Amino acid sequence: MTSHEFYMQLALQNASAMKGQTDPNPLVGSVIVNDNRIVGVGVHMKAGEPHAEIHAIRMAGEHARGATIYVTLEPCSHHGRTGPCAVAIVEAGIRRVVVATLDPNPLVSGRGVAILREAGIEVIVGVCEEASRRMNEVFNKFIVSGLPFVTLKSAITMDGKTASRVSDSKWITSEAAREDVHLLRNQNAAILVGVTTIIKDDSQLTTRLPNGRNPVRVILDSTLRLPLDARVVTDGEAPTWVFTTPAYDREKKKALEAAGVAVFVTSQSGRVDPSEVVRTLGERMLSSLLIEGGSEINASFFESRLVDKVVIYIAPKLIGGRDAPTFLEGTGIDKMNDAVEINDLGVEKLGKDFKFTGYPVYKEGR
Amino acid sequence: MTSHEFYMQLALQNASAMKGQTDPNPLVGSVIVNDNRIVGVGVHMKAGEPHAEIHAIRMAGEHARGATIYVTLEPCSHHGRTGPCAVAIVEAGIRRVVVATLDPNPLVSGRGVAILREAGIEVIVGVCEEASRRMNEVFNKFIVSGLPFVTLKSAITMDGKTASRVSDSKWITSEAAREDVHLLRNQNAAILVGVTTIIKDDSQLTTRLPNGRNPVRVILDSTLRLPLDARVVTDGEAPTWVFTTPAYDREKKKALEAAGVAVFVTSQSGRVDPSEVVRTLGERMLSSLLIEGGSEINASFFESRLVDKVVIYIAPKLIGGRDAPTFLEGTGIDKMNDAVEINDLGVEKLGKDFKFTGYPVYKEGR
Repeated sequence: MTSHEFYMQLALQNASAMKGQTDPNPLVGSVIVNDNRIVGVGVHMKAGEPHAEIHAIRMAGEHARGATIYVTLEPCSHHGRTGPCAVAIVEAGIRRVVVATLDPNPLVSGRGVAILREAGIEVIVGVCEEASRRMNEVFNKFIVSGLPFVTLKSAITMDGKTASRVSDSKWITSEAAREDVHLLRNQNAAILVGVTTIIKDDSQLTTRLPNGRNPVRVILDSTLRLPLDARVVTDGEAPTWVFTTPAYDREKKKALEAAGVAVFVTSQSGRVDPSEVVRTLGERMLSSLLIEGGSEINASFFESRLVDKVVIYIAPKLIGGRDAPTFLEGTGIDKMNDAVEINDLGVEKLGKDFKFTGYPVYKEGR
Repeated sequence: MTSHEFYMQLALQNASAMKGQTDPNPLVGSVIVNDNRIVGVGVHMKAGEPHAEIHAIRMAGEHARGATIYVTLEPCSHHGRTGPCAVAIVEAGIRRVVVATLDPNPLVSGRGVAILREAGIEVIVGVCEEASRRMNEVFNKFIVSGLPFVTLKSAITMDGKTASRVSDSKWITSEAAREDVHLLRNQNAAILVGVTTIIKDDSQLTTRLPNGRNPVRVILDSTLRLPLDARVVTDGEAPTWVFTTPAYDREKKKALEAAGVAVFVTSQSGRVDPSEVVRTLGERMLSSLLIEGGSEINASFFESRLVDKVVIYIAPKLIGGRDAPTFLEGTGIDKMNDAVEINDLGVEKLGKDFKFTGYPVYKEGR
């Protein structure tokens, strides 16, 4: 690890610790180093409060002069509550700026760096770039596309099954992994399942964590079979949004709406178009979506290339069965060579289970 | 790590390094420690040559007196080429013996320890026991049951598929994992597939490693569809044994035998009984079997509780498809609670892929 990476990782660690409290702003951390000594540490803590660089510069005081500042995101060039950070860096007499990644917003990307360079400051871009991009993966996608960042989650046996041949799935994973799912729910603005999951399990789809945030519950239901006494309809724990097709049951729609459920009628017949769902969520400012669907819902999002990230829990057990489902079905891809690769697939042990996290790379762009 | 574990691990490392060269004897290592100094290191290198303890005692010479000896397996009590090791330990004046695991053979297990204790020597059993048992897992099963140790190997996508919906499987894993499979073949006395694998791929089932040892090729073929021009019939690289049912094709049997293939007619009609195959291999002194079957062959061995170990390679890719196969099908288990647990499931990264290794634990004993 170079010293640039050492300081940037400290900045990343501080930034990451603010996860969930900076919305709608990204996570940003900053460290100022002068003569091999850390003289300032800053982090963005809350929208409306100072950016990371401002906190660090204030902490450094006179030691900022001639120093190097590390920032996990390009310093801003726009006038916010505390003025452009790039200008503040220039005014503080900082000599060198090390940036992890440029601003993801194409409208402003590179402007902060330009201000710094025009002032004669040395700028290095790209130190721990991947880590910084991943840290703000939700923000980065949403700011650019207006679409939520989509995570597909599933739990499988070592032989790839999500349930037995008679649909029994309680429980595949152990406690630690199931608790981790609640952390995932806590981090997502919306959670999506098919109506079959509700009919079968009467799932509540809430975050069972102390102070947990419940995501908006999104149910795909092409004809409105959602029972009026389902807990997602009656419990009032979080908003419930149902997406249906033009074949929906008119009376049921009225009843659901009377019960406080929002019903969205999408344009495609047959099954609900996943792209339309995602677009609608984005328009309503939901920046992240967790899919906990069955194999066909998962496949429809996957085939529409809407899945940005997969989280797969693998349990140390074997169930067998030619009729037992896997988490990704649909038609499928014909040639193994055309399979969708998963980038940066990492694994960690969680109790007795293993948790895989990675990023699908769709072959012909998106 | 205690100092007992430290010395035992050195003994285990030496023993493991002899893998493949001690057959039909087990791997055994030994270390002698006197006054906190290693004074002797021994390892069993070849059947007919001295046991590990004898080498270590010779190396230690006079320093063996009053010392502690570490042995990965209980010292023997029988008269081999160099006399019982337990007696040699007593005669060397050793004061304490630390043993990883008792002899797996119930006929002699505990006898070595009894000789030592009768001579007033302190004996500690069970240091690094699991590691020692795993190291000789093949030997331990075969010596007790007369049946080969069965390893089931498969390569799957992250969504649990062994091929696409149109049976394309080239290639799921990357080079490093495919090379690892050849190491597995090299370590097994026999390899087993269904005849469909041969008909589809004309697989040779050989070990493509420098100085690699080819396993006996075992083909399950209920009616003798094995083509006479298949490479396993014509290449002469290793023996080929075909197991068939009473419904076999008489003419084909003669032709296969004329080509040098051994044909075994099993008693069960329908499909070949996996228990009968395993028993036959054991009777012919094949102590280990690697199954590289399709989902139904795998399931038949699994349902007969014959699989001792699973090795699963997972590739970072998604293929989808409700008709794409998984590695374990058959009827399957109904309740997730009754799923077969995999003990000691470990994972390592192999190129871009992940390799899982573990031991199925069948619920109602074996």
